[in-house]
Amino acid sequence: MESFEIETGGRTEFVDITDRVRSAAVRSGKKRGCVFVYVPHTTAGITINEHADPDVADDIRRTLDRLVPWDGPYRHCEGNAAAHVKASLLGHCAVVPLEGGALALGTWQGIFFAEFDGPRRRRVLVQVIGE
Amino acid sequence: MESFEIETGGRTEFVDITDRVRSAAVRSGKKRGCVFVYVPHTTAGITINEHADPDVADDIRRTLDRLVPWDGPYRHCEGNAAAHVKASLLGHCAVVPLEGGALALGTWQGIFFAEFDGPRRRRVLVQVIGE
Amino acid sequence: MESFEIETGGRTEFVDITDRVRSAAVRSGKKRGCVFVYVPHTTAGITINEHADPDVADDIRRTLDRLVPWDGPYRHCEGNAAAHVKASLLGHCAVVPLEGGALALGTWQGIFFAEFDGPRRRRVLVQVIGE
Repeated sequence: MESFEIETGGRTEFVDITDRVRSAAVRSGKKRGCVFVYVPHTTAGITINEHADPDVADDIRRTLDRLVPWDGPYRHCEGNAAAHVKASLLGHCAVVPLEGGALALGTWQGIFFAEFDGPRRRRVLVQVIGE
Repeated sequence: MESFEIETGGRTEFVDITDRVRSAAVRSGKKRGCVFVYVPHTTAGITINEHADPDVADDIRRTLDRLVPWDGPYRHCEGNAAAHVKASLLGHCAVVPLEGGALALGTWQGIFFAEFDGPRRRRVLVQVIGE
Repeated sequence: MESFEIETGGRTEFVDITDRVRSAAVRSGKKRGCVFVYVPHTTAGITINEHADPDVADDIRRTLDRLVPWDGPYRHCEGNAAAHVKASLLGHCAVVPLEGGALALGTWQGIFFAEFDGPRRRRVLVQVIGE
């Protein structure tokens, strides 16, 4: 399993990690299977969406801010409950099929690390299973 | 890896693809592992839920419409930002364990392709990992 | 594939199943791969989030109640449409990488079974793929 680090710059921020995941998948030497991109944090998530227009990630980020506002009637004592909720809505693992040694991402798809309580130093795990 | 195509008929529509996924899993010849059903699009998603009563998928579809309305203060220039957001909320890959050569779906579970910006011709990938 | 049962006590409840998943992963004897924790129900889901402070799971549970209220303009005849919608928002499968025979969970991460239409007796499947 490989891992890499990210430095996020704002409280909420979507970071395109497609190239780093692709490199890790190629280094695995596997040709057919699935790539699992895992976030070992509880106030960050991961998603796959369009990365041609950066406004798309921004619309996702801002819609989550609207649905789960930072200030609310939360009980968690650390003040970042909204970040935890958004992490669970988006999820902690992206799965991408691997075929012919390449990620089977669609034409417009990129993989985004979703920071919900930054800025922080974060880690991403890439596990490749297959042959 | 197998793939199949879907023609969606409305802007938002949930299409039951359980039988097509099951057939692809059987054709893989594998007996134990997991089946990964992947959507290579950025304005469509996938989910597992009850398929006995079609009203369930309809309630999910309409709740997402309420939470993420088509018209909103989005920045994405193509006018379909809501579809992108809903795709990320639902996710792009459904995972189903495979045991004894059969999908380990629960009694009421079916697999739905979720169109959020149709009508379109779409593609679904089915990757089976295991023995 | 292993499975275990849970008895939930309220209509909505998050149950920490981390230890049971870890035990199943260890019993598999595999050292490297991924663990798939699957919920074969349509009114329950699964998520990974902080399990040090139980208020975090409670904040997620209550935010979902706010976004998808029990009573609403749903069509599903059984009266539990909100539970179905919440199951799809959270998802039915948690993926955790396995490395050195151990779950690669982050320091604060735990695995939660999310009951949305209890109390009920529920089942969780644990499939481990790898070597």
